[in-house]
Amino acid sequence: MGKEVDVSTLEAGGARDYADPPPAPLVDVDELGKWSLYRAVIAEFVATLLFLYITVATVIGYKHQTDAACGGVGIFGIAWAFGGMIFILVYCTAGISGGHINPAVTFGLFLARKVSLVRAILYMAAQSLGAICGVALVKGFQSGFYKRYGGGANEVGAGYSTGTGLAAEIIGTFVLVYTVFSATDPKRNARDSHVPVLAPLPIGFAVFMVHLATIPITGTGINPARSLGAAVVYNNSKAWSDQWIFWVGPFIGAAIAALYHQIVLRASGRGYGSFRSNA
Amino acid sequence: MGKEVDVSTLEAGGARDYADPPPAPLVDVDELGKWSLYRAVIAEFVATLLFLYITVATVIGYKHQTDAACGGVGIFGIAWAFGGMIFILVYCTAGISGGHINPAVTFGLFLARKVSLVRAILYMAAQSLGAICGVALVKGFQSGFYKRYGGGANEVGAGYSTGTGLAAEIIGTFVLVYTVFSATDPKRNARDSHVPVLAPLPIGFAVFMVHLATIPITGTGINPARSLGAAVVYNNSKAWSDQWIFWVGPFIGAAIAALYHQIVLRASGRGYGSFRSNA
Amino acid sequence: MGKEVDVSTLEAGGARDYADPPPAPLVDVDELGKWSLYRAVIAEFVATLLFLYITVATVIGYKHQTDAACGGVGIFGIAWAFGGMIFILVYCTAGISGGHINPAVTFGLFLARKVSLVRAILYMAAQSLGAICGVALVKGFQSGFYKRYGGGANEVGAGYSTGTGLAAEIIGTFVLVYTVFSATDPKRNARDSHVPVLAPLPIGFAVFMVHLATIPITGTGINPARSLGAAVVYNNSKAWSDQWIFWVGPFIGAAIAALYHQIVLRASGRGYGSFRSNA
Amino acid sequence: MGKEVDVSTLEAGGARDYADPPPAPLVDVDELGKWSLYRAVIAEFVATLLFLYITVATVIGYKHQTDAACGGVGIFGIAWAFGGMIFILVYCTAGISGGHINPAVTFGLFLARKVSLVRAILYMAAQSLGAICGVALVKGFQSGFYKRYGGGANEVGAGYSTGTGLAAEIIGTFVLVYTVFSATDPKRNARDSHVPVLAPLPIGFAVFMVHLATIPITGTGINPARSLGAAVVYNNSKAWSDQWIFWVGPFIGAAIAALYHQIVLRASGRGYGSFRSNA
Repeated sequence: MGKEVDVSTLEAGGARDYADPPPAPLVDVDELGKWSLYRAVIAEFVATLLFLYITVATVIGYKHQTDAACGGVGIFGIAWAFGGMIFILVYCTAGISGGHINPAVTFGLFLARKVSLVRAILYMAAQSLGAICGVALVKGFQSGFYKRYGGGANEVGAGYSTGTGLAAEIIGTFVLVYTVFSATDPKRNARDSHVPVLAPLPIGFAVFMVHLATIPITGTGINPARSLGAAVVYNNSKAWSDQWIFWVGPFIGAAIAALYHQIVLRASGRGYGSFRSNA
Repeated sequence: MGKEVDVSTLEAGGARDYADPPPAPLVDVDELGKWSLYRAVIAEFVATLLFLYITVATVIGYKHQTDAACGGVGIFGIAWAFGGMIFILVYCTAGISGGHINPAVTFGLFLARKVSLVRAILYMAAQSLGAICGVALVKGFQSGFYKRYGGGANEVGAGYSTGTGLAAEIIGTFVLVYTVFSATDPKRNARDSHVPVLAPLPIGFAVFMVHLATIPITGTGINPARSLGAAVVYNNSKAWSDQWIFWVGPFIGAAIAALYHQIVLRASGRGYGSFRSNA
Repeated sequence: MGKEVDVSTLEAGGARDYADPPPAPLVDVDELGKWSLYRAVIAEFVATLLFLYITVATVIGYKHQTDAACGGVGIFGIAWAFGGMIFILVYCTAGISGGHINPAVTFGLFLARKVSLVRAILYMAAQSLGAICGVALVKGFQSGFYKRYGGGANEVGAGYSTGTGLAAEIIGTFVLVYTVFSATDPKRNARDSHVPVLAPLPIGFAVFMVHLATIPITGTGINPARSLGAAVVYNNSKAWSDQWIFWVGPFIGAAIAALYHQIVLRASGRGYGSFRSNA
Repeated sequence: MGKEVDVSTLEAGGARDYADPPPAPLVDVDELGKWSLYRAVIAEFVATLLFLYITVATVIGYKHQTDAACGGVGIFGIAWAFGGMIFILVYCTAGISGGHINPAVTFGLFLARKVSLVRAILYMAAQSLGAICGVALVKGFQSGFYKRYGGGANEVGAGYSTGTGLAAEIIGTFVLVYTVFSATDPKRNARDSHVPVLAPLPIGFAVFMVHLATIPITGTGINPARSLGAAVVYNNSKAWSDQWIFWVGPFIGAAIAALYHQIVLRASGRGYGSFRSNA
């Protein structure tokens, strides 16, 4: 937006053709008086509820279709469910709440000072509550099957150490939050038309890809609200004893992604021109 | 469209940078005299026919490939067929009829006063007729297999209550119609470039995702024309006795999505600036 | 392109905001003297070669992985190979040759007077030759397996009549060519930003969807060059005796799509405004 | 960018509406003093590391899920992992490094004089090192399974000759690098809005498609860093003796794609107008 003016400025010299918004304050009192904050919190709640409802229903539905060897949608279908829902929900809520749907994403954007502390806390609460409600719906619908098929809970898989589980969650969340930072970078939005237009799609695909790789290791969390929601509703001791992995890992991964983006990729303030000639 | 002017207005102050069209009248006499209405009705008929033809052919074709355990495309392929066809058909007909292809979508947009009552009724009739014709084509092509493999009809699955089936249809349709409202919101279209450009893709994905989650529960309706078309051609008592679920559920889900969008997400008329800084 | 000017004209009144190019002449002598024609013919040859190479290799590779029940990519993977390659190749060649890669598409666009007769004939020859070369490569690489696994040839499946095979090819090609017409309509390109930007994706998806539905019936042709290439290299009597179906069916389907688009969807020349208010 | 000005020039006459950047020098001394070069090298390292981590983890995870015949994501899921990661990583790094993530892509763009020799060498070193680290991570996480399931290494499959393996790598890399050239062509970027906006998606799909077709033949390299990384960590004699195929093949394929694009598709300097009327 306002691209035309910016670009001509860019071409006239080496001036910056984009504006980084100022860092968000920790507490923004004005924000608290605006309906837009509460609407955003509601949107995060609804989106995380729908995310867990669809994905956990797919997990349970897949497992109970034992009649035919290939009757269900498979692990591959489950990976699509997680990635596809994030694509849709980021598409629908990006303009309302920023489309986080994940406390690790909120944490990464908070570290980068893109959301205030107050907003971050409200989002994480809404996401966690939404996730619990979404899984509870699946349990209500599929009562017998839900318990029998593991409740969609995240646990470190048999044959993997706790350290491996934690590392897999760190790297997986790094992939996701790195993609989110790339998609929301004002500089790249101003330069490459694919960045703003496609944004929800690679974010959804990042979730899909990480699920393909790490379902055998941890079931794939990379979203503390998702892991908490399933643990609360399933309420199994293994799910609870592993729960810390699904908060510590994603938060570390998100922090590394924030550092990588801010320190390495956006490091220099020098006024060089477009990199597109190397692209 | 006209974006440049709008955006500069936005940046100059807090003025609205988009125009909500006026509510559609219940009966628009002018509309009845225009070829564009009838062309739109024909486009809805053809699109719904193609939708049912491709998807039900995939369902039947999948089931009759019993020679190899993994010979068919699986439930996953069926979910893709429904979602992928909606992507294509919304892409092709959005500029002609709005690309509803589903009475629940038409109902939701009618409640939001985006289409007139007359147009809504004509669309629903065309969609229902198109669906019947599409399923009839599959029956004509695959006569023996069609009856044997359940005719692609929607029924509440064994082990699920009527209430669960109804609730699954309500939530599934909510996911779809919520996505449609997000994709067609003039305010977001003006602000986020991914909203208008990607639009048919997340709408198709919403259908795909809901199928992944709810094929085991109801076979997934979320489209009364689709359910009616299969029931008429298959003409089985269970399909008929469950038929009301596939009208009541989707209409309730669409109404909740319309309310959520209009009351919660578009609630305030206050002139705040872009939300993008939080995105 | 030139959109800004057009849109302001549109908003000022009901004037046409797009320009339909004049009908292509049957023989364009100027065209014959231009390198751009021959480059386009080469691009069609290369693209159709790559299309057949990748897709038929997937078909043969899938079938010979008999060691594990689900070892191959399945019919679903084959459907993706056909659709995904069309997506890529339309993306790559749209600006060079229009990205037809299919004599039925060329025929439909010729009927709509979008390409000259000379260009249409040269394209079809290049497509057919490219297809033969692509399949020949697969045969060269997979010699033993190629013959054993049916050579990727199109035939009417066991249990289906010739009439059903012909009808399935007609409808399948209609879906494809209808999508192509929607994607290349100057009027919709001017109005809906998703039309020009996404264009190669729904065209690829149309091919994917038709394969999901009709692989059991005919193996899915909807592209006479693809069917001819496989028949020439496989050189089997059934593939030859059914070959006419894979030319007559696609040409009829393309003709109906051209008529539907020109007569129904683009019928009226009256100057009404945007349809977006109904979308 | 700067499109508006260019387009009006185009419409005023037959003038060129795009600017080809000047050929990159072999050694660009200025470049060596800029942080942007080192940032780009780091970005290539990180992206190739993530690429190999996710894809090889998917390969190993798939193979060790032997409990159920259809328990894993299958060869189809593996093909998606490779293609989907390239989509994400090109999306994220295009504006930083050009998003090569593959020495064959770097080589092709070097031949076309789009990157300097110095940059090309630094990129290839970073890609190779990143790939080794990515595979090493998978080995660390899945120690027992890693060796048992082949380590994700590329080898010519049983029943295929060395010549076939080499040819498959040449054609597969041609498909990928041809897509990259199409996506980064300034002329097409100026003319067709789908070219710059979708760019990372067809590039990812090209990788996906080539994997579908050539996993049975060579496991699919088309990326020397990927093949080297797996060979170094797996350290098996067959992987090493076939290794040359996965450097020579992709480099030949990339060179042919560069020639095809520069000699055939961009051959003429004559000032003709848009080709869109044939599209």
